[in-house]
Amino acid sequence: MAISGTATRRYKNRAKEILEVAAKLFREKGFKSTSMQDISKALGLEKGAIYYWIKNKDQILYLLIENEGKEFLKMINKLVKENCPPVEKLKKFIENHIKIMTENIDKSAVFFSEYKFLPEKWKKKVINFRDEYESMLIYIIKEGQDKGFLRKDVDPKLIAFAILGVINWVYIWFSPKGKYKAEEIAKNFSEIILNGISNRT
Amino acid sequence: MAISGTATRRYKNRAKEILEVAAKLFREKGFKSTSMQDISKALGLEKGAIYYWIKNKDQILYLLIENEGKEFLKMINKLVKENCPPVEKLKKFIENHIKIMTENIDKSAVFFSEYKFLPEKWKKKVINFRDEYESMLIYIIKEGQDKGFLRKDVDPKLIAFAILGVINWVYIWFSPKGKYKAEEIAKNFSEIILNGISNRT
Repeated sequence: MAISGTATRRYKNRAKEILEVAAKLFREKGFKSTSMQDISKALGLEKGAIYYWIKNKDQILYLLIENEGKEFLKMINKLVKENCPPVEKLKKFIENHIKIMTENIDKSAVFFSEYKFLPEKWKKKVINFRDEYESMLIYIIKEGQDKGFLRKDVDPKLIAFAILGVINWVYIWFSPKGKYKAEEIAKNFSEIILNGISNRT
Repeated sequence: MAISGTATRRYKNRAKEILEVAAKLFREKGFKSTSMQDISKALGLEKGAIYYWIKNKDQILYLLIENEGKEFLKMINKLVKENCPPVEKLKKFIENHIKIMTENIDKSAVFFSEYKFLPEKWKKKVINFRDEYESMLIYIIKEGQDKGFLRKDVDPKLIAFAILGVINWVYIWFSPKGKYKAEEIAKNFSEIILNGISNRT
């Protein structure tokens, strides 16, 4: 049992490593321009050995995107059920979303820019993920409008798109070695989104 | 002269058409997965005829991105010199940026998602474009902070990234046949960005 447990762990660690290396390559070169050989080479694997863990390139892309999508959904599902004011929920949403994004920025970039290359059946699943996520965000916004905390003169869907714009765009400019840390970005973006940038004095 | 003028016009129209068709294909299939033959076919051109107008696929990508970049820069250069309050400038900036984006949404999508495939020397030019654009936006924001119109507790660069996030993300979800018109999006996003989404009562 101990040996089997170690073997399983090793198998899982290797699979995780493949996804990380692939995410980096897909981001830099694009999914279409990255070959299975490029991924094997970056991992230091013999030609063909990668197929022990992964069926093909499409599967790598789907696993990457599915992992990320599930993490986002798990987070918002938990949040929607929390017993706290809608503005507080939105603040937590922004912070958690930026946390997930920045923790693995390559995976986030692939999620947004390469999903179009997924085979149709998987692409549909990802679109469902995205729609569910958007719906839950809109639900929180509507709750905030209904309870009088948020302005009602803007369509909640447009508010959702504005929020998603601010926080998703992070994958374009964020660098783990850059000037701004994830917590600082989240704090400032919450401020901007929730209170606006105009001076209220 | 008349004949020559007509010929020039025809030449220019065809070149414009090539860029439009290529933008649509690059967006749908990705730059790497689109061949010159795909573009020729979509234009109804004989094999090889496209080379009368365009040298190669890299040149198409660069022309697309350069056109878009120049339009953005021309707009913000004009705006910076205008004699109006900074908040009004930001409002105009958001409206104009969304107008340029949505007028040719395929070109905008290619601008953001495919520029990484440009040859190095051209990529550098595009990065310079982008940096200049960002700097001018930051300049307007700082002006607004210095004159007391905008909150000073958020780094102007982070404010710029938040604004660019909201307005650039439009290329991900906007459809010319969709529910929201460009003017409506611009109006609502100006409201959200400039005044915030919290209820002030």
